[in-house]
Amino acid sequence: MEVLPHTLAIDVMGSDRGPSEIILGISEALRDRDDFGVLLVGDQSVIHRELQKLHIDQDPRLEIVHASEVIGMDEKPVHSLRAKKDASVIRAIELVQEGKAGAILGCGNTGALMAGSTLKLRTMEGVERPVLVTVIPTFDRYIVMADVGANPNTTPIQMVHNAILSSDYAVRVLGIEHPRIGLLTIGTEEGKGNELTLTTHEYLKQLKGIIHYSGLIEGFQVFEGAVDIVLCDGFVGNVLLKTLESLVTQLKGYLKGELKKNPVRLLGAFLAKGAFEALKVRLNPEQYGAASLLGLRGKVLKSHGSSKHGAIRSGIRMAVALMGEGSENSSQRKILEANTRLESIKS
Amino acid sequence: MEVLPHTLAIDVMGSDRGPSEIILGISEALRDRDDFGVLLVGDQSVIHRELQKLHIDQDPRLEIVHASEVIGMDEKPVHSLRAKKDASVIRAIELVQEGKAGAILGCGNTGALMAGSTLKLRTMEGVERPVLVTVIPTFDRYIVMADVGANPNTTPIQMVHNAILSSDYAVRVLGIEHPRIGLLTIGTEEGKGNELTLTTHEYLKQLKGIIHYSGLIEGFQVFEGAVDIVLCDGFVGNVLLKTLESLVTQLKGYLKGELKKNPVRLLGAFLAKGAFEALKVRLNPEQYGAASLLGLRGKVLKSHGSSKHGAIRSGIRMAVALMGEGSENSSQRKILEANTRLESIKS
Repeated sequence: MEVLPHTLAIDVMGSDRGPSEIILGISEALRDRDDFGVLLVGDQSVIHRELQKLHIDQDPRLEIVHASEVIGMDEKPVHSLRAKKDASVIRAIELVQEGKAGAILGCGNTGALMAGSTLKLRTMEGVERPVLVTVIPTFDRYIVMADVGANPNTTPIQMVHNAILSSDYAVRVLGIEHPRIGLLTIGTEEGKGNELTLTTHEYLKQLKGIIHYSGLIEGFQVFEGAVDIVLCDGFVGNVLLKTLESLVTQLKGYLKGELKKNPVRLLGAFLAKGAFEALKVRLNPEQYGAASLLGLRGKVLKSHGSSKHGAIRSGIRMAVALMGEGSENSSQRKILEANTRLESIKS
Repeated sequence: MEVLPHTLAIDVMGSDRGPSEIILGISEALRDRDDFGVLLVGDQSVIHRELQKLHIDQDPRLEIVHASEVIGMDEKPVHSLRAKKDASVIRAIELVQEGKAGAILGCGNTGALMAGSTLKLRTMEGVERPVLVTVIPTFDRYIVMADVGANPNTTPIQMVHNAILSSDYAVRVLGIEHPRIGLLTIGTEEGKGNELTLTTHEYLKQLKGIIHYSGLIEGFQVFEGAVDIVLCDGFVGNVLLKTLESLVTQLKGYLKGELKKNPVRLLGAFLAKGAFEALKVRLNPEQYGAASLLGLRGKVLKSHGSSKHGAIRSGIRMAVALMGEGSENSSQRKILEANTRLESIKS
């Protein structure tokens, strides 16, 4: 394998669609650009066969790193990490830990990736828990949502760290200079919300100069373009994201069914095809095909367990772009400054 | 006014669209059926003028109850309840308290209605906090969601009460014999979730024979028809409901814009009109035009602050149907039984 400035470790095992779908995505990403390399982690004979099928087994940018075990989607993270020492996800994380890869992209069990990378890579100084951050499409822009599931029992100080990490992420990934952060709650009058949002709101107001806090937002403002970052705890974010995804899917299915009910509607749908295509492109979740686990001493990305090759391809594009810079230093500095500033309020 | 079996107190003041919209809805409901009466609470001269405009000022089923003050949508509930003793919402609640009305339908400030009715009507025995319950349309059925905002800092025992109250509500309103309850969380494996859902899950499992608990569900299952009741805390429910509503609205707007972009698409949209109409009817939130505040010693319904007359009309239909039965006794008995059963677990 050539020595390339950016080397990405990809756990190709354990996803819903199997290694062939992941490796197809990798082959497409290799055609997009040639300034990165991939360490494919998993069962070497399976990977080799897939590479041969796609005629990329001789590509000097690829290297197989064998791992004999796989953690399935439904296995309990902590238990399986203990039981399967040679799991592909662990091996891939270790490649980052050892400096052999600049980032890991996982496509399997999210809990195992989170627990494993927290354990092996450790959190940044002053950060207690990592945060899972994702980019979601709205009707006129992309926004960042954090946390979408890393930490369902969040504390106000963790929310502050998540705000800082997401803000630097929005700068990097979406190219927004001063991302506006909104704290998701159930009413924007002072005093409304739950214990977590009430204290977090007070803390975030102290962070002028570190982040751009726009204040409280309600659910109906998520798609209104009022903010660039929707900040919420990992329970709310996860429930919200999954419900929204499912609503869009079901809505598409329902409309499709109705449009097929008679030939006149079918003709209408054919003529109006462009409008549906535009909507599909606009709300395509594959545009940013990976979520990022932030707050660790290493770059960790996660594709959806049911990702198709297109999402893997765009996840790799994101990972390669993120490997190209070192904004962790900036986040690290801001987090320590926030901790110092808030120390006086808390006590 | 005639003595009618069902008399509903309606606070006609304080909504976004003003008394005329509410009173238009009332006039439509009066045409639908004639076995109920309405006490219209608010500024008597304003109400009288609106009734005259609609030529129903002589209708024997209507009576105006004057209240000199109004609590606006953005006023702080507790503060305004104290400052405005003659607020229309308070007067309407008192009519229920005094036995002059069988239920109240509020259309204004939700917080004021909740705080006022909790204070005046008090909770059922064994219930700590009321719960706001709403019916939402999915693609093949209607489901109940609870809590959608009454209580953002919920405890497990309160969640249990909410489950029982919502279950009896689904029986009454949706006619489902044994409603299946799903507890909304971020992963269905045992051990996943937050502190609230973990304990609530354990409690709900103890309630065999009282409710039909189907277990944990994730966000993507909300629209899948797996359960009849989606149970979550008031913070999650409120954020979820508002975000979903806004997504549907924005989606409609976007698609409409795309369909108008050229004459071919417009023609297509015209031919496919029936499909869009079907979707609109299917997801019409006005079908069940009011949410209910359950767990109180009196029936309290709440229409959306921006309700149009159609939603008010259907809210009245719901209120009249609910006034016709006394399922509070059933809920009360189940709640006391659940409290006793759980007492041994908690200690």
